[in-house]
Amino acid sequence: MFIGAQVSLYPMTSDFVEVIMTGLDALTPYKSDLRIETDDMSTLMVGAPEPLFGAMRDLFAASTRRPEHVTMHVTLSRGCPGEPDDPTCRCDVLEKAQDESLAERQVLAAEAVRSAAETGVQIDLQFSLYVMGNGDHMEEIYGCIDFLRNSGTFHKTKNFCTRLRGDAGPVFETLRQAFLRFGPAQGHVTIDMTASANSPSLA
Amino acid sequence: MFIGAQVSLYPMTSDFVEVIMTGLDALTPYKSDLRIETDDMSTLMVGAPEPLFGAMRDLFAASTRRPEHVTMHVTLSRGCPGEPDDPTCRCDVLEKAQDESLAERQVLAAEAVRSAAETGVQIDLQFSLYVMGNGDHMEEIYGCIDFLRNSGTFHKTKNFCTRLRGDAGPVFETLRQAFLRFGPAQGHVTIDMTASANSPSLA
Repeated sequence: MFIGAQVSLYPMTSDFVEVIMTGLDALTPYKSDLRIETDDMSTLMVGAPEPLFGAMRDLFAASTRRPEHVTMHVTLSRGCPGEPDDPTCRCDVLEKAQDESLAERQVLAAEAVRSAAETGVQIDLQFSLYVMGNGDHMEEIYGCIDFLRNSGTFHKTKNFCTRLRGDAGPVFETLRQAFLRFGPAQGHVTIDMTASANSPSLA
Repeated sequence: MFIGAQVSLYPMTSDFVEVIMTGLDALTPYKSDLRIETDDMSTLMVGAPEPLFGAMRDLFAASTRRPEHVTMHVTLSRGCPGEPDDPTCRCDVLEKAQDESLAERQVLAAEAVRSAAETGVQIDLQFSLYVMGNGDHMEEIYGCIDFLRNSGTFHKTKNFCTRLRGDAGPVFETLRQAFLRFGPAQGHVTIDMTASANSPSLA
């Protein structure tokens, strides 16, 4: 299994380089657990979902502590058949999920969100979950949407994506649960996600 | 068939509201062909691929004519089983693609990129193509990557995505061809795409 993300931070300020550098400092505690490589468009992070989602949450939370509007885009992927197996990406949640029904996974996902620690930072987030390969991919997606509606972080549905809102802690935990508990445990699942904070046009 | 996109523009300047408003002016010629709805996180555009990709290209090209670093993120979708049929999304390329082999589609895609008009704006772009449902989704993705490598706009492969570089005209045409010619013509296909211009850290 290969798990990772391409992450881009977009501060809507002329000081964007400084905001990005401050945000990247938040990744320091994760550097031993994740492979992190930055180019001019995005930062690749490869590793297990626990540090991976923690790193994304802390990067974004750190960047939102200034007053400026900031967004972050992430392309997440697990199980892509074109990527090599990577032992650092091993994940107990995925191992166990193979034997769990959709209903069981919905319960476990909801419990994980309820016990997520708060960060003190309010964010908006919208994302799309994609399940590739054989099988009824829409059943898993509808099952995920049911979980999202009852997650406590649900805001609204939109065409092509779902909006979440709340503290960055439970919001990123909701995203992690959607990524790990829905779609085949050994299949190819991706997420297209955008987070936003301090928007002047919050609706 | 339902075809559309969630589009977000991110100018890395304290004048970001003005840059966004200038960019949105570029959408005026497309308002009769597309349904366009904006909220605080993204702009929904629904319609046929010809005006849809033209609108995205012109929105981004207009925003890059100022000196500031600007990026745009787009979530594209066609054929989502959860969306209603919409006659305004009808597309001849998709209708014909049902009877064309992968090799034929690669040739047609390359021809379309070669004849795309230039805009005078240089951009970078990275994207992931997702093919849902039954069938060998990786065969279509590898076929698309072959087309991209010979498109004239190919820059490099990265984990989870492919980088393009060049004039916004052929680059957005490459993206449109990837979206329309690969994956089942009546299937569910999505793209997660980020464009960038005027980056101070161009590599």
